[in-house]
Order: sequence, then C-alpha cells, then structure tokens
Amino acid sequence: MTNTADFAPRDFGDDFSRPAGWLSAEDITSARGQLPLVYVDAVPVRVDEAGDVISVGLLLRATDSGHITRALVSGRVLYHERIRDALLRHIEKDLGPVALPLVPASPQPFTVAEYFPTPGITSYYDPRQHAVSLAYVVPVRGDCVPQHNSLDLAWLTPEEAVSAEVLAEMQGGQDVLLRQALSHVGRLV
Amino acid sequence: MTNTADFAPRDFGDDFSRPAGWLSAEDITSARGQLPLVYVDAVPVRVDEAGDVISVGLLLRATDSGHITRALVSGRVLYHERIRDALLRHIEKDLGPVALPLVPASPQPFTVAEYFPTPGITSYYDPRQHAVSLAYVVPVRGDCVPQHNSLDLAWLTPEEAVSAEVLAEMQGGQDVLLRQALSHVGRLV
Amino acid sequence: MTNTADFAPRDFGDDFSRPAGWLSAEDITSARGQLPLVYVDAVPVRVDEAGDVISVGLLLRATDSGHITRALVSGRVLYHERIRDALLRHIEKDLGPVALPLVPASPQPFTVAEYFPTPGITSYYDPRQHAVSLAYVVPVRGDCVPQHNSLDLAWLTPEEAVSAEVLAEMQGGQDVLLRQALSHVGRLV
Amino acid sequence: MTNTADFAPRDFGDDFSRPAGWLSAEDITSARGQLPLVYVDAVPVRVDEAGDVISVGLLLRATDSGHITRALVSGRVLYHERIRDALLRHIEKDLGPVALPLVPASPQPFTVAEYFPTPGITSYYDPRQHAVSLAYVVPVRGDCVPQHNSLDLAWLTPEEAVSAEVLAEMQGGQDVLLRQALSHVGRLV
Repeated sequence: MTNTADFAPRDFGDDFSRPAGWLSAEDITSARGQLPLVYVDAVPVRVDEAGDVISVGLLLRATDSGHITRALVSGRVLYHERIRDALLRHIEKDLGPVALPLVPASPQPFTVAEYFPTPGITSYYDPRQHAVSLAYVVPVRGDCVPQHNSLDLAWLTPEEAVSAEVLAEMQGGQDVLLRQALSHVGRLV
Repeated sequence: MTNTADFAPRDFGDDFSRPAGWLSAEDITSARGQLPLVYVDAVPVRVDEAGDVISVGLLLRATDSGHITRALVSGRVLYHERIRDALLRHIEKDLGPVALPLVPASPQPFTVAEYFPTPGITSYYDPRQHAVSLAYVVPVRGDCVPQHNSLDLAWLTPEEAVSAEVLAEMQGGQDVLLRQALSHVGRLV
Repeated sequence: MTNTADFAPRDFGDDFSRPAGWLSAEDITSARGQLPLVYVDAVPVRVDEAGDVISVGLLLRATDSGHITRALVSGRVLYHERIRDALLRHIEKDLGPVALPLVPASPQPFTVAEYFPTPGITSYYDPRQHAVSLAYVVPVRGDCVPQHNSLDLAWLTPEEAVSAEVLAEMQGGQDVLLRQALSHVGRLV
Repeated sequence: MTNTADFAPRDFGDDFSRPAGWLSAEDITSARGQLPLVYVDAVPVRVDEAGDVISVGLLLRATDSGHITRALVSGRVLYHERIRDALLRHIEKDLGPVALPLVPASPQPFTVAEYFPTPGITSYYDPRQHAVSLAYVVPVRGDCVPQHNSLDLAWLTPEEAVSAEVLAEMQGGQDVLLRQALSHVGRLV
C-alpha cells in the first residue's frame, strides 16, 4: 500500500458506477477513519511444473514526486464481494484480462497483514487507513500486461526480489509481506 | 453470528465510551450496509498436555422468542485494534476475565468465514451485514464464566459438539465453522 | 490407503528399477514395521475461474474380494525425492500423464494424516504400516484417465462426495481426510 | 540438524530400551540411506498475553572441533508415535521436564523442511540422511533448562535472533527455518 495519491484512482474509481448502497468517495473517506477495511494482497508468481516458484511479479509505479516504487497487487474488498472475486478483480485490474490467475482453492491466507495508520504497531503501515489484508500467493499462467497506473511489471527471481535495492522500493511494509510470501512457499533466501 | 437483537448490545455497547473518531451506533448501522466489516471468530477449546483438543466451549443464549441458541465467541475488530487484541477482548467479554486464553502466535487463521447478508453465497449468513471473519481455535486454561448476555457455557467433547442436536442450535453457519475448526485440529468426527 | 493387496503393485513397483541404495521389496517390508514412512495424500479437484472447488476426483478400485472402494491419490515419498515431485509422480501414476496438476506453491499441507497400524489412535488407519502423510488439495486442469489399478475416476460435487454412500466406500480414514480437504477449501457440507 | 556426532547420542539413545520391533542403531543407519525419515522441528518461543512472540529459544552446542552452534529443537518421530507426542518428547529432552510446552492443537505445520543429504536441492541440508521435518512454533510457559548435550539455552528477541551473527551459527538451513517461523508469526524483521 502506497500513498493515497497513487492508490486513489484505482481503489475509488470502480465504485462510481455501483448500484445504490455502495459507498461514495466521501463516505469511504469517512469510513477510513473509523473502521478497519477489508483488503486483499496478492503476490503474483510464476511456477514450474512441480509448483515451485520461479519468479515473482512486482508492479512498478511512479509517485507524484517522481520516485519509482514497487508494489504487490492490493486492493479493497467491496460490499457483497467474495474474497476470491476481489482477488480476481484486483489481479485483472493490475495485470490485465489475460493473466489467467490461479486463485487458491482455500480461503486460508498465508498471513494477515494489518496495515495501521500509525507506524510501528505492526510491520505494515498505511497512512490513509487501518486495513486488514488477507494475503495470498497467486500463480498466474497467462500474459500479464501492466495497466494504466503502472509503468511496468517486473518478473524477478526470489533471489532478485529480496535484494536490498528491490525491497527498498517497496512501501508500507510490502517488503516484509513479500518476504513472508517467499517464506511460505519455501523460497526465503 | 446470530440475529441483530441478540448481538446488538454486545457489539455496539463497547463503542459508546470510545474516544472521538470511533463510530456511533448510527454510523456503524450505515457502514454495515456499505462495507464488509472485519470480524474474528474464536472457537474456545480445552486441550490435554499434548495439545489434543478434549472439549469445545459453546455459549448458550436465548433469543427474543425464547429459543436456545449456541454460539462461538465472535465479534467485530475495532478501528486501530490488532486482530490478537480483538480476540482477547471478545474472549474476555464472553468467557470472563480469568479464562486465560492462549491467543495463537500466528495471525494465519484456520479459515476465513465470509458472512453475507444474502443466504447461499457462502456457508455463512448474517442478515445484519457482510462480515469477513478470521477464525481461530483458542485454547483456554482458566476458569470460564459466561457473561451477561449468555445463559451458560457448555463444554462438549468433539463428538458431542457435532451431534445433530447441537449443530441445529447454531446459527448463521457457525455449525459449519465449528466443524471446520474440529477438522483443522484433527478431531472431525 | 487401502489394503496391501491393492496397493502393493503401485507402491513397490516403481522401486525395482531404482539405482543402488533404493529399498528392495523385502527391505521396505521390514522398514514398514519399524519406522514411520513419509507419504503424500492428494485430493484432486476441479476449480472454477475464481478457484472455487466444483468437483472432487475419487478413484474406484476393486478389492480382491470384489468390493468397490474409493480412494484419494496416495503414495510413498521416495528417498531423495521432494514432496512436490512425489505429488506429481503419484498424480501422474493414478490420473495419467496429461492430468496437468497444479501442485501447490507452498509445502504447508492442509493437514497431516497419521495412519497407524492400530485403529483408534487417530482418524486414520493402515494395517500395513505407520505412515505420516502430508495432505494437499491439488487442482487438475487436464484430462484425467484412471490407470491400471483403478476401474474408474469419478468426479463428484462436494455434496455428492460427502454422501454417506460415498464415504462408506473409502478406507483407512480417507473419508475423514476428504471431508477435511473440503473443509479447508470452504466446501464442507 | 547438525552433524552426526552431535546428534547421535540424542537420536539413538532413546531407542535402546524400546520393545522388540524398534530399530537398532545399525538398522536406523541403514534406513537412513534408503528412506526419508519423519522428523519434527520445534521453535520454542515466549509469548505475551496477546500471543505475540517476545523471544525465541535457541540451544547452544559445541561441536567436536570446538565450534559453537545454535539449534532448534529437532528430532525423529518414532514408530507408532504421534507427531504431538514426538514434539513433547523432544522438547522435554532438550528443554527439561518443566518447560510446559503448548503443543499446537492443529497438526498443520507452518512449513515442511525437507533436509536432503545433498546440499542445494532445498534450503535444508543434513549430511546424515533425507529427513522430512514438520515444523511448529511452540510457546513454552515453564522453566527451561538445557539438557546434557547443550551448553545453554539463549532467549533472543526476534530482532536478535535474525542477526547475521546468530544465523551464521545455525546449521543445515535451520537459520532459514527460524526466519520462516518468525515470518509465520508476523515477526519477520
């Protein structure tokens, strides 16, 4: 999770055409200060025939100030949306319509990332809100094309992904979450 | 999760003395129709020296119409509250201050129960709201005393807990969640 | 796990052509009475686009006495073989070479089934041996063809799979393991 | 897992008084070259009231050549022994009889460490054997006293435990396993 400016178009945009009962942008801004929001984090990976993780996909984005950041696929779960549908929607939004993600059969996440608006309470930080994010490793089989708000999608080996340079470009504790994902799949370096 | 009448005092009550920024009862009613809420479900268990589950604790409650229902420990995660603190708080609220729960070291839940206001989308149903509930098995070592809104706390063996009579007294899919908990600890009957 | 007669050709057969250092049939018979063996159990499933389990694949076999039994994919992990390679090998052996299994990226099993030669210690029983089996749900995307020692492969909905008739045809506690797998993917009925 | 000299007394010793049918020292040496053995790894931790990991217990041992090594609690699962009883036995053996371990209610390990006799296949290496080790985080509440084959038991904060100095003193990939354990409990630094 990065700063509001980066994320706002992505998170808010798809709400505007929702039926009555869905939150307006103002309402969600208000809720963000009063309730924990439900999020999903997806770590896109390529796997070999035996399921072993070969590479990890990280999105590249530019902040307003021109810094390059790297991010996992991440976003809010909407009212009346299943976790698995939220995963599909956010992966399609970030990796394009033919990424062919293999959403896990089980809802058990590998961890729960608790993003607090106050740094230091957990490993995760989001100045905008308190988000409780269910984190999944999601193999993708198809062609991934970074979408509008991303400059690129880089596929890195587990070794490359946990290099100090790459981790330093991640925000809000997603560097920790990435390493947890690699730990979970037995590829912690 | 049972019906609003049963749960409202418990869920809303602890908000009234919160500092500014916390949701009023009206605000949460509004949010309940627009956002998924973050919940925790705890299955209280007694374990033997080797960690094997000996019995499961189920709360007995009476509905307005006089029916007896059985329930797991369940409740909302508050703004700026960690999952593990929410577990502690709800267990203390339902089982008393000397239950001595052993909150799991890992945030990985055994499952995520998605309670929808529409029946049939998942195994879980909550007419009041869309709640995404992280479910944990929580051993308790101390004395458990059912609190104000419960008639009793019954400790049942896994075999007793999954009897048709007991499961029929659970609501909103908590019978399924209980069986999932027993499945997770290797005590599915 | 079914009785020795059923399983022996499958379990022993692939050892005969192994390089020096692999166990002979006599050696493994001896080891079976003295050491717990490492096994894998795979529950083959079909999933929809969102990863939701649609159906479960159960093997049909005939015992020497002519009874029909249903079984999961199950087998021993060989010396110097990775868990994920053992999963691939046993799935190919039972479902054929074009089943296209999606072996999980993570080695974390949904449960560990401890098959004891003495009934009643755990939910699992194997008269031949003490086996510690790592259990995984494995989506398959390709064509599955039951192999030599199976009569058929039946794809059942979760509801059909947990019917009393089907569960009664499973042996050694695999009925429990199947229900645990469905519980893990949120499809416990 | 460290070298044979360190581990042999511990692993073999408790077999000598076993009833007929248990492996002799020669038999297990033979089996070690032919079958994967079932192991457990336990990461002993101290937790606070909310279950958060405060410190990790690492055993200090001296090798024959006088080097200091640090180790997790680790050992073989015996024939006809449950995983949870093996955990209890090895924790008692290494931490003493009043460590009061809280063996997890669920058999689901946080990972499976595959120790190969060949380096580089997985993150784990054991020159003696191929061991498939189920790894658990185990809170201990009592007094821990290092036993005969350990010099000391050091309680380190998660930050101290993953320092380069400490990790360098671990063998066979247990440094990776320790970091995986901390990752699982949300304390990866």
